[in-house]
Amino acid sequence: MSKYWSKITQSVEPYVCGEQPKDKKYIKLNTNESPYPPSPRVLDAIKNAANSDLRLYPDPDCDKLRQTIAEYYNLNKEQVFIGNGSDEVLAISFLAFFNTDKPIIFPDISYSFYPVYAGLYNIKYKLAKLNEDFSIPVDKFLTGNGGVVIPNPNAPTGRCLGLDSIEKILNYNSENVVIIDEAYVDFGGTSSVGLIEKYPNLLVIHTLSKSRCLAGIRLGFALGREELIDGLNRIKNSFNSYTVDRIANEAAIEAIKDENYFEQCVDKVENTRQWVIAELKELGFNIVPSKANFIFITHPTYAAKLIFTNLRKKGVLVRYFDKDRIDNYLRVSIGSDEDMKFFIKKLKEIIDEIN
Amino acid sequence: MSKYWSKITQSVEPYVCGEQPKDKKYIKLNTNESPYPPSPRVLDAIKNAANSDLRLYPDPDCDKLRQTIAEYYNLNKEQVFIGNGSDEVLAISFLAFFNTDKPIIFPDISYSFYPVYAGLYNIKYKLAKLNEDFSIPVDKFLTGNGGVVIPNPNAPTGRCLGLDSIEKILNYNSENVVIIDEAYVDFGGTSSVGLIEKYPNLLVIHTLSKSRCLAGIRLGFALGREELIDGLNRIKNSFNSYTVDRIANEAAIEAIKDENYFEQCVDKVENTRQWVIAELKELGFNIVPSKANFIFITHPTYAAKLIFTNLRKKGVLVRYFDKDRIDNYLRVSIGSDEDMKFFIKKLKEIIDEIN
Repeated sequence: MSKYWSKITQSVEPYVCGEQPKDKKYIKLNTNESPYPPSPRVLDAIKNAANSDLRLYPDPDCDKLRQTIAEYYNLNKEQVFIGNGSDEVLAISFLAFFNTDKPIIFPDISYSFYPVYAGLYNIKYKLAKLNEDFSIPVDKFLTGNGGVVIPNPNAPTGRCLGLDSIEKILNYNSENVVIIDEAYVDFGGTSSVGLIEKYPNLLVIHTLSKSRCLAGIRLGFALGREELIDGLNRIKNSFNSYTVDRIANEAAIEAIKDENYFEQCVDKVENTRQWVIAELKELGFNIVPSKANFIFITHPTYAAKLIFTNLRKKGVLVRYFDKDRIDNYLRVSIGSDEDMKFFIKKLKEIIDEIN
Repeated sequence: MSKYWSKITQSVEPYVCGEQPKDKKYIKLNTNESPYPPSPRVLDAIKNAANSDLRLYPDPDCDKLRQTIAEYYNLNKEQVFIGNGSDEVLAISFLAFFNTDKPIIFPDISYSFYPVYAGLYNIKYKLAKLNEDFSIPVDKFLTGNGGVVIPNPNAPTGRCLGLDSIEKILNYNSENVVIIDEAYVDFGGTSSVGLIEKYPNLLVIHTLSKSRCLAGIRLGFALGREELIDGLNRIKNSFNSYTVDRIANEAAIEAIKDENYFEQCVDKVENTRQWVIAELKELGFNIVPSKANFIFITHPTYAAKLIFTNLRKKGVLVRYFDKDRIDNYLRVSIGSDEDMKFFIKKLKEIIDEIN
């Protein structure tokens, strides 16, 4: 603790992200990255953007990228907000929309950055306890909140909420912003984007880090009514005018435009997920139904923490959360078929070694 | 105004950055960009980084870049903090160090983002009125503040403060953080970096947008004692774990390493500044002494606003601030010799047309 730290610096509990190992080469199934490289069109766009124009600031409004995203989702560009990764978009959204006397609400088992944002901005929150099967208890979000945040599919569980349930939540919370964090929606979920026309309180957040294979480029966006996007811009322009650089702009445009490549990558992940689940069931694991590029698994006999530690020793990183209710689960990102065969092989070795 | 906006969204007065025109090609002397492209080594590094690893998150700690910067400044890497442009570094610094009952203090004529940050985080501030010649009144910073921010050289004036004066301010404000914003220091100023060893309350902020010709890549950094850098990391990791992407990381490393190219660019800007000042004096302009890549000029006869408007019509953008005390000044970035010849030519035309 330093005497120079502000009260907020003293009190925050920073987010701890999944390990980015530097010691040796691992099979990385711990941060839900895509096992596939970005579209070749993205790589070409980056190479083309490596030119003398880098001496100039980027377009602070990302007009061309917003137009591209708007066309993809059948919106107009005033309904699109761009940020330096969806984490930044979320952080800006918390500050832009949440600070009434009433607490905001999000699931107790969820993306662990939400309580961190709340801590950073002194926003009161309460947790909606997930049902025993980790499904989202819709009724608990109908309680007079100061705002709602739901990841759909949820992380780290992978479970999805239907649009009928989301509409119920949107209707009840008509005076507050409801954020649907769709980081993982492309892997089998149903997007709420189509509800934007009907609900002025809906903000949908996406990222290029998962289904677009671009975690390394830092690009996220929010979709919603113009008044919400205006609010986000007011905060962003009070923080950093140019959050997205020239290269990321060009890369993102091509990532959105190359629909074929995107669909191929998503299909491959879904196919791999299917056979991995079957193999894990053979080994006696229980798997939470997943519409994401990860699965959340537990075993009635072998402790998750022990498996986690032994996988690490054998060169496979998965994510273990030492938290109430989920401390016997592992979140495993869906890698390539080759990665997942290695993972299953090592898992079998570990089970053999324990027995 | 939307009912969904938080109080802070309603009350902020966002920063308005220098125009990035989309309508036609201008000679851009309005945002202090470098007229020179980034080092060829930087462009090569970007092309090399356009590979399949972009599917992976970047190193959240930017270890390699921090090591490179530390070596350049004779520090260790725990004394370096990296951000998505120096605006982000400043925003994080305000939140990390300023929130006591006492107001922070910065010059009345200065970077106009400072009051915006203060507004965003509800930080009280007072303005130290610059002397008539726009020099910084050191005594006004010796008043029991909650923090100090001084750009050195100052913007938009270009005036520099000597290290003896900075030491006086550091000594008096030993209980508060003193931020020296050195965005423009490479063009003839003296950096305070050497004082970090002596003063635990000193934070020095730099950017690659000006002297490193990389405004398009968004990279800034802070240098200071480890306890200050730790504070910045606590806030950053409560906001966005991965603020700097893989491409920007690699680009920045090469930009710092290519010292020859950097020195050549800086020399050229200084040489151009010299002859431009001489020409402007010929035309009757008064020029504030500048150690930056811009000059702050006024004319006893011709109104700044009129010149600004007419320059724009003739395809030259400069910056005009419609603010008390400086509303008859223009801030003119130093472009290439060719740009500046065009600027002087158009200026002469305008003066002829008025007469």
